[in-house]
Amino acid sequence: MKSDLDRLMAVRNLEALVVVSDHDFCPPRDYLTNGAKVTGGLLLKKRGAAPLMIVNSMEIEEAKASELEVLTFYDLGYAELIEALQGDRSRAMLHLWQRALEHEAVPPGRVGIYGTGAANEHIELARELNEMMPAYEFVGESGTTLFDEAAITKDADEIERIKAVADGTNAAIRAVWDYIASHHAQGDTVVDQEGKPLTIGDVKRFIRRALLDHDLEDTGMIFAQGRDAGFPHSRGQDNAPLKTGQAIVFDLFPRQLGGGYHHDMTRTWCIDYAPPAVQQAYDEVMEAFDISLEAYAEPGQPAHTLQDAVLDYLESKGHPTQRSQPGTMNGYVHSLGHGVGLNIHEAPAMSHLRQEDILQVGNVITIEPGVYYPDQGFGVRIEDMLYIDASGQFVTLTDFPKDLILPLKG
Amino acid sequence: MKSDLDRLMAVRNLEALVVVSDHDFCPPRDYLTNGAKVTGGLLLKKRGAAPLMIVNSMEIEEAKASELEVLTFYDLGYAELIEALQGDRSRAMLHLWQRALEHEAVPPGRVGIYGTGAANEHIELARELNEMMPAYEFVGESGTTLFDEAAITKDADEIERIKAVADGTNAAIRAVWDYIASHHAQGDTVVDQEGKPLTIGDVKRFIRRALLDHDLEDTGMIFAQGRDAGFPHSRGQDNAPLKTGQAIVFDLFPRQLGGGYHHDMTRTWCIDYAPPAVQQAYDEVMEAFDISLEAYAEPGQPAHTLQDAVLDYLESKGHPTQRSQPGTMNGYVHSLGHGVGLNIHEAPAMSHLRQEDILQVGNVITIEPGVYYPDQGFGVRIEDMLYIDASGQFVTLTDFPKDLILPLKG
Repeated sequence: MKSDLDRLMAVRNLEALVVVSDHDFCPPRDYLTNGAKVTGGLLLKKRGAAPLMIVNSMEIEEAKASELEVLTFYDLGYAELIEALQGDRSRAMLHLWQRALEHEAVPPGRVGIYGTGAANEHIELARELNEMMPAYEFVGESGTTLFDEAAITKDADEIERIKAVADGTNAAIRAVWDYIASHHAQGDTVVDQEGKPLTIGDVKRFIRRALLDHDLEDTGMIFAQGRDAGFPHSRGQDNAPLKTGQAIVFDLFPRQLGGGYHHDMTRTWCIDYAPPAVQQAYDEVMEAFDISLEAYAEPGQPAHTLQDAVLDYLESKGHPTQRSQPGTMNGYVHSLGHGVGLNIHEAPAMSHLRQEDILQVGNVITIEPGVYYPDQGFGVRIEDMLYIDASGQFVTLTDFPKDLILPLKG
Repeated sequence: MKSDLDRLMAVRNLEALVVVSDHDFCPPRDYLTNGAKVTGGLLLKKRGAAPLMIVNSMEIEEAKASELEVLTFYDLGYAELIEALQGDRSRAMLHLWQRALEHEAVPPGRVGIYGTGAANEHIELARELNEMMPAYEFVGESGTTLFDEAAITKDADEIERIKAVADGTNAAIRAVWDYIASHHAQGDTVVDQEGKPLTIGDVKRFIRRALLDHDLEDTGMIFAQGRDAGFPHSRGQDNAPLKTGQAIVFDLFPRQLGGGYHHDMTRTWCIDYAPPAVQQAYDEVMEAFDISLEAYAEPGQPAHTLQDAVLDYLESKGHPTQRSQPGTMNGYVHSLGHGVGLNIHEAPAMSHLRQEDILQVGNVITIEPGVYYPDQGFGVRIEDMLYIDASGQFVTLTDFPKDLILPLKG
């Protein structure tokens, strides 16, 4: 949780951390600023102190929405620096870092750099800062970072925001189902009242609008049919008309408009009817889904135990898995799920390749078993998002039926 | 242009470059892959060779859309690596880098790292790669990078894509004008047929939908009224109703849905009538706009000369500027414009703080003078996007009238 940040900084021996944010999408900034969006500035948090925002003067009104202390570049002498450095803005920014560290009286030691932007800039920035200020060691971090660790458990305020995103997503998916169902079939092609084929592109446009109605934005949904559905990350072909009797994998992972918390859910639909092979795979994935929920007993349990239960079951049904055949592109080819928050993929990971993650109160996670057979022309995945409440129970956030058959009523 | 990349790599003494892409938004990836979206993989370009994509096996179908050579992590032995390294995926990825460099027979020397993602990961990645493979020097780059330099001039294919985005944006802004005009005034408040106030939030929702109709996405538009319009980067308050006689700064900078090329344009509107102070500022900004176009003579001219002409004019009219009063928040507080492409801000910069940028055939730029008086409750900005064609002439891409008064017809 957010309240863990100082402890997590101490564990890493960080005297301070700085968040750079050159992009709209910047989870650590959103985490520290309560969603205030300022790009191009710095956010400096000394261990034990509240964060300080340092922004371009044009961004000051936006920055104030954070309710943090705000300084502009000019407050720290940017104009004189630019003049002294003959217009070298990137050098002037390095001096702003130095002045910001002085302003907060950060003692010599390690300073962590976080945030999002361009790799080339981050690497060069760290090199230059280390050269310029030998009293500090400016460091990055790979693997599970300080922010990742803090975000593993969400506080009550975050859960409320996440619920609001879930409500909007649930409403949008309901609208999508009704929209498709309002069409009818001509042969095996789904068509509208005028006989015009309904394409995946049409459906995706509808979905994006439905999300906007709830102040959510799409971040690259999957709506893949037939053979495409057999590749877990194929997003679907916009010009392809919807067909009856084909497995459609619909994975929707929107977030708050402009960046913020995510939802993540998947349904597999067959319009009008399902071929026997798809129905069988579907029944087994549903069983795997239920088995994973049953495998959860209480907080403290390793997250991979849920994946292990699903692997055991799906392997017993003859599906290749990433455990039995690493690198397989058939069968159960991914892990069971992941945490969700300001990032679409957070800890804990429910993977047999990651033994250390445990399930805890405040986790927000997905459960998403699936099997994929591109050569047989189908894939199946079912995904709900849920959280672990104060009593240690799973609470499902995704609220939409798990029917395979989507009957046309048009 | 893209064809300059090998030359630009030679100038930087780079034997190869690698693009990492952990985010949806990754301009250097989109540049090299012709828009194919693959996250989490590597893109390795040896100097003089075509790029090689190395992707998670789940991403292979998407990767193929690039028409580049594609290898999966497993083709390079990821499964054995994970086993040998006891599940340490971040260590396994470092070995994939090594194998990819071997696969392309990259000679010892400098390797540039580009792409987008988390600062902490980039900094740690560079440190670890340099420790692991002393034959190479893995480096970042600040300031105007190799990709920035290549992107300063766009090739014919890029101009075509940029024109398509301009067409959609122009259509969307026309729809927005008509939408607002269809309302009427009740006192000084803009209301709909039922007398319900039209809010900035309503207008923004309408705009996002209008963009989607043209397969474009908003990236954080500004629709700011009155005092808010006086802060160049204030985005506007969603719950505020539109008022007659208030300056509205409407800055729209959408891009192709899912990432790609941008458009960037601004209009200032006063609904029904303009107060004299706003009208005067508007007339002067329009004059500054025309002066900047007239200040352009031919390719090869320093970009800052256009800004200089605007500074001279606006200062002569009594407006403080960033040249006459660095740090001012009143008057003309920003530069004249910037390049636009896969990034919303590219080179050349038309700023008095940047002397080295020149105007060239293939530039795609904005011209956006403005003056801001938050204490007087208004700001004004006018922005068109244009490019320099093969004959060296400015060609305007933004096609929408520059009327200040938006009359209600509802």
